[in-house]
Amino acid sequence: MRQFTPLNPEFEAVVRESFGRQRVMHTLGASMARVIPGEVGITLPFRADLTQQHGFLHAGVVTTIVDSAAGYAALSLMPPGMGVLTVEFKVNFVAPAAGAHFVAIGRVTKPGRTLTICAGDVYALHEDESAEAGMSDSGQDEQAPAGKLVVTMLATMMAIRERENIVG
Amino acid sequence: MRQFTPLNPEFEAVVRESFGRQRVMHTLGASMARVIPGEVGITLPFRADLTQQHGFLHAGVVTTIVDSAAGYAALSLMPPGMGVLTVEFKVNFVAPAAGAHFVAIGRVTKPGRTLTICAGDVYALHEDESAEAGMSDSGQDEQAPAGKLVVTMLATMMAIRERENIVG
Amino acid sequence: MRQFTPLNPEFEAVVRESFGRQRVMHTLGASMARVIPGEVGITLPFRADLTQQHGFLHAGVVTTIVDSAAGYAALSLMPPGMGVLTVEFKVNFVAPAAGAHFVAIGRVTKPGRTLTICAGDVYALHEDESAEAGMSDSGQDEQAPAGKLVVTMLATMMAIRERENIVG
Amino acid sequence: MRQFTPLNPEFEAVVRESFGRQRVMHTLGASMARVIPGEVGITLPFRADLTQQHGFLHAGVVTTIVDSAAGYAALSLMPPGMGVLTVEFKVNFVAPAAGAHFVAIGRVTKPGRTLTICAGDVYALHEDESAEAGMSDSGQDEQAPAGKLVVTMLATMMAIRERENIVG
Repeated sequence: MRQFTPLNPEFEAVVRESFGRQRVMHTLGASMARVIPGEVGITLPFRADLTQQHGFLHAGVVTTIVDSAAGYAALSLMPPGMGVLTVEFKVNFVAPAAGAHFVAIGRVTKPGRTLTICAGDVYALHEDESAEAGMSDSGQDEQAPAGKLVVTMLATMMAIRERENIVG
Repeated sequence: MRQFTPLNPEFEAVVRESFGRQRVMHTLGASMARVIPGEVGITLPFRADLTQQHGFLHAGVVTTIVDSAAGYAALSLMPPGMGVLTVEFKVNFVAPAAGAHFVAIGRVTKPGRTLTICAGDVYALHEDESAEAGMSDSGQDEQAPAGKLVVTMLATMMAIRERENIVG
Repeated sequence: MRQFTPLNPEFEAVVRESFGRQRVMHTLGASMARVIPGEVGITLPFRADLTQQHGFLHAGVVTTIVDSAAGYAALSLMPPGMGVLTVEFKVNFVAPAAGAHFVAIGRVTKPGRTLTICAGDVYALHEDESAEAGMSDSGQDEQAPAGKLVVTMLATMMAIRERENIVG
Repeated sequence: MRQFTPLNPEFEAVVRESFGRQRVMHTLGASMARVIPGEVGITLPFRADLTQQHGFLHAGVVTTIVDSAAGYAALSLMPPGMGVLTVEFKVNFVAPAAGAHFVAIGRVTKPGRTLTICAGDVYALHEDESAEAGMSDSGQDEQAPAGKLVVTMLATMMAIRERENIVG
């Protein structure tokens, strides 16, 4: 897996602070797991009140967490003072979102000054599988993630100037 | 706008019953508005607990309602006994999701026995604009919808056999 | 259909000049038909040496002409001195590309200073159908285009500064 | 990289025979390089008569080879008697298609009886870089491919019954 050098030494604080302002994440029960340069993981426990007509997590809910994971992967490589907006994404649903918890992993494919291209995946895990198992370790080879792939995404993110310093 | 002839005279009941089982729609506060052959509208009032870091509706939330609108537009043209799954979609975010309420409109571009291609749009409306204004009338020419376009989508839906009769 | 006001009174000359430099269009045998603000049509006669394994036009060839149609629709609304690049697109293939000639129509959904969102469609026509019939008339309501829809596209285009004046 | 077990021991012959019938590949000058289960590589030398207005390979030409690479990656995992059609794809253009030759690599993300999800990448190589260098070796870990990433794709392919046995 490609190693990126962050332009902002405070990248993790910037990402976690912005995630903390995404009120929908609190509403859904999602939390931010790993933040490394160019890769962010978000976890979500299953909840019956987020389901579609067959009892699986709704496609839009799974999309919500992988969109944020990809957006924050992009933000982790941006210089200080920048924020991130989603320009567009495309998502394939490869298996029903059935599981006890879910981990969305966003990774930067190609960083850029204005546009950053990201890939994302969501894995469904059983009760006894660790969400951490789905994430690669910084400084190691990419591992086959635990869990079952349910969603794969390709997204375009855009850097925008934040109106105020969002950290500090 | 193209007129479609439904294969199931009970299409509206089938669509509304399935939507009623999408528990996430109740959680988000979304409701189904118009159901006509090949077109479905879903409305969502703004809620601060569904926002991203800049105070707009999260891209994933807007995607959730337009995905359901497009999926049910596809289902409205399917024969009795069928259900619908999202294969994939691509969504462009063309303006921030700021507004008092939102209307997602899903329309069938090309129906098919296995796969149905759909387009979707989401409009943001002010306090005093009617969500109904965003929808076309059956039997009339397509109107320029009220509100501001915030999202446009292109999606592939798949027909699946429902395990049980979902109406009656 | 939405009417756009071009920022460059020379928009048609700019678009046609740039198209003339797309050498692949000459290689494929494509020509530019209508250029109006926010909408461009490109026509391509069928050629057996552009086919895939079943004898239909290859998906990539159809994509090539609708990508250019959408890109030039975006360029038609840009200020003088700008050029256009494709950021990304998503294409659905809704019917086999069988026909005597093809017309690709690109239309701007949402113009922007940096990014412009476009929709595109390709229609297959018989020997005796006119490619012009697939295009809407400026100042009239959108018509149902002649021919059979084979491709529908959603694309993101980007304005770039051209190194030299491309007209004059 | 995930290892797949082909359902058809003749998968390579099936894939190469079908590719041989894609007349557009001959027209463009593309050739099929590696065929392994779930992964196919196609190479294309630069040609000035395939360029867009800035002298780079046209986006549609690059898309044409990566679409075929992904489609044949899907076909390599299908049972005997099947053919493949592209349902849809989404392509991001991450760098100008400048180079002496290009290698498109299609890989299966998720095989399925009806639908197969694939990823694709195109790399641009200099005169002195080998196109083979861009491809992973069966039985080895995935390597960072040589060359510069110019395109990344996410695609949905569909299995169809071929009217006649296409090999033998």
